[in-house]
Amino acid sequence: MASGQLPLANILTLGVRDFGGQRDFYRRLGWPQVFDGDDFAVFELRGLLLALFPVDKLAIDSRAEPGTSDGGIRFSIIIQTDGPDEVDELADRVRQAGGTITKDPVDAEFFSGRDAYFADPEGNYWEIAWASEDNPVTTAARRAAGLP
Amino acid sequence: MASGQLPLANILTLGVRDFGGQRDFYRRLGWPQVFDGDDFAVFELRGLLLALFPVDKLAIDSRAEPGTSDGGIRFSIIIQTDGPDEVDELADRVRQAGGTITKDPVDAEFFSGRDAYFADPEGNYWEIAWASEDNPVTTAARRAAGLP
Repeated sequence: MASGQLPLANILTLGVRDFGGQRDFYRRLGWPQVFDGDDFAVFELRGLLLALFPVDKLAIDSRAEPGTSDGGIRFSIIIQTDGPDEVDELADRVRQAGGTITKDPVDAEFFSGRDAYFADPEGNYWEIAWASEDNPVTTAARRAAGLP
Repeated sequence: MASGQLPLANILTLGVRDFGGQRDFYRRLGWPQVFDGDDFAVFELRGLLLALFPVDKLAIDSRAEPGTSDGGIRFSIIIQTDGPDEVDELADRVRQAGGTITKDPVDAEFFSGRDAYFADPEGNYWEIAWASEDNPVTTAARRAAGLP
């Protein structure tokens, strides 16, 4: 990146064990695919691309060992909804798609709003969150995605 | 989200064991902070916000168990540079900041371009990549970040 310019860092690659199963799960959420192949699939969200790639190949490409999940949470991607009802709606859709809701939608503890958490079939976690008022993080997230 | 609208999903929260150490590492990369607190720090990149939060608190908030890393790769965030030299420059900066380069910059295997991989001090992986020509993934990543 040029001096003073922020790096573009908006593709998250998940190393997956069951490529077809994981791809089917995210398709069932209704997220559009922008690329599809035998071992590489990319979904487009606002701000982020979600890529799926077999974890063994990710390990080879990165010169690292393939990591295994112990089922616990190490990271989470926050999906930001436009209203509180949409937290519940998306949680319902996740449940129907076969995801695991670890935290049912409730009023949030760490900010003013509503949130829920889910894990995909291989233990990758997402938070669904609505913040009731502008805060610096919400404002920065919209700016990072090129939104007003 | 409204029907037909993609969800905004551009905050990645890393559950960290050493909050201060991880925050210092990302500060040394020169990434600007948009929020700072005793147990929550947020860095702004293009497209993405990177949030750091103690893994035990993330586990409580998500009603899950805290995950532990086995040192292997399970996911990676791709940083997209504007040219091949910048892959090497950022890899140098990561090395100076105390990150672990697992793959030194080389011509990429899975696309036409150049890439490297690094892990932060707690084993969270990033890929630094430059793609030599427009491809659907690069185009979609720029679109997702609101860039031309």
